[in-house]
Amino acid sequence: MTNPAVLRQRILGVDPGSRNTGFGVIDSDGRHSRCVTSGCIRVGQFGWPKRLELIFDRIAALVAEHRPHELAVEQLIFARDPSAALKLGQARGAILCAGLKGGLDVHEYSAKSVKLAVVGTGAADKSQVRHMVRVLLSLPELPGEDEADALAIALCHAHSMGIPARKRAAASWRDFRP
Amino acid sequence: MTNPAVLRQRILGVDPGSRNTGFGVIDSDGRHSRCVTSGCIRVGQFGWPKRLELIFDRIAALVAEHRPHELAVEQLIFARDPSAALKLGQARGAILCAGLKGGLDVHEYSAKSVKLAVVGTGAADKSQVRHMVRVLLSLPELPGEDEADALAIALCHAHSMGIPARKRAAASWRDFRP
Repeated sequence: MTNPAVLRQRILGVDPGSRNTGFGVIDSDGRHSRCVTSGCIRVGQFGWPKRLELIFDRIAALVAEHRPHELAVEQLIFARDPSAALKLGQARGAILCAGLKGGLDVHEYSAKSVKLAVVGTGAADKSQVRHMVRVLLSLPELPGEDEADALAIALCHAHSMGIPARKRAAASWRDFRP
Repeated sequence: MTNPAVLRQRILGVDPGSRNTGFGVIDSDGRHSRCVTSGCIRVGQFGWPKRLELIFDRIAALVAEHRPHELAVEQLIFARDPSAALKLGQARGAILCAGLKGGLDVHEYSAKSVKLAVVGTGAADKSQVRHMVRVLLSLPELPGEDEADALAIALCHAHSMGIPARKRAAASWRDFRP
């Protein structure tokens, strides 16, 4: 029996950076997830308007190739450096525009929510996140740091979809294997 | 005689804002300029990803309709509020992406350069900028504040193109009227 509450979603997770932008596409039913593709867009060697174009084009190409349904990005709460915040904001603007123009719904999660969803504690460090991303997606090796952060954001969104789905469809979940 | 150094350029000037983004399209030969269109993109009543999409779409539509050759934006140097810098950065990212995807060259000018180019002093206040924008473009009335800032940025770029052009083509300038 097909239960609409446990339909698979394809999620693009992005960890924006003014030099390195991690990305990861996962398929998930809210409980079980697999990695479709992941990597890092490195633009640090280019000047500013060029960086934005490269980020926009790469995200647009990922959307065109893998057709994700949703875009999940980290909610940025910057407390110190306004200059870094401006640069990061620009990169984020390029990513969100590429996603929105590709018809994706955009979801934002705080760093704490991402760590909580993936490791089980909001105070997890980067190595714990990388380790759990590898385990949850059965990756053959540890992903790169930016890549792991992007996959963790995608997993966080997958889990946030999964919680109400599991509550609504508790019976059908016993027999469900993706 | 047509002198390539004094060919007219169509310039899109944009004053990015997270709520109000001023824009102005001018035609200029570096010395004489006229306003093609100007206005303000108001997105303050919308939530965040939506704002970016509206800004991107409006700039893309302006580029498609008026076919400017260059995009001029204010160089942002933020010193205080990282949260405002992040929001402004996102809006700026959307604007630059829309311009870059429309094939425009992007140029950035500091607020001081813009005031210097339009009013003649880097310490000019907003009302002086509005007044001079009105005079330089022979506008029938004072433009709105964001609109005036965008037109001033476009004029600054026009003047910066005009200086070397005038130096290179000093003789032909005596008889040249647009």
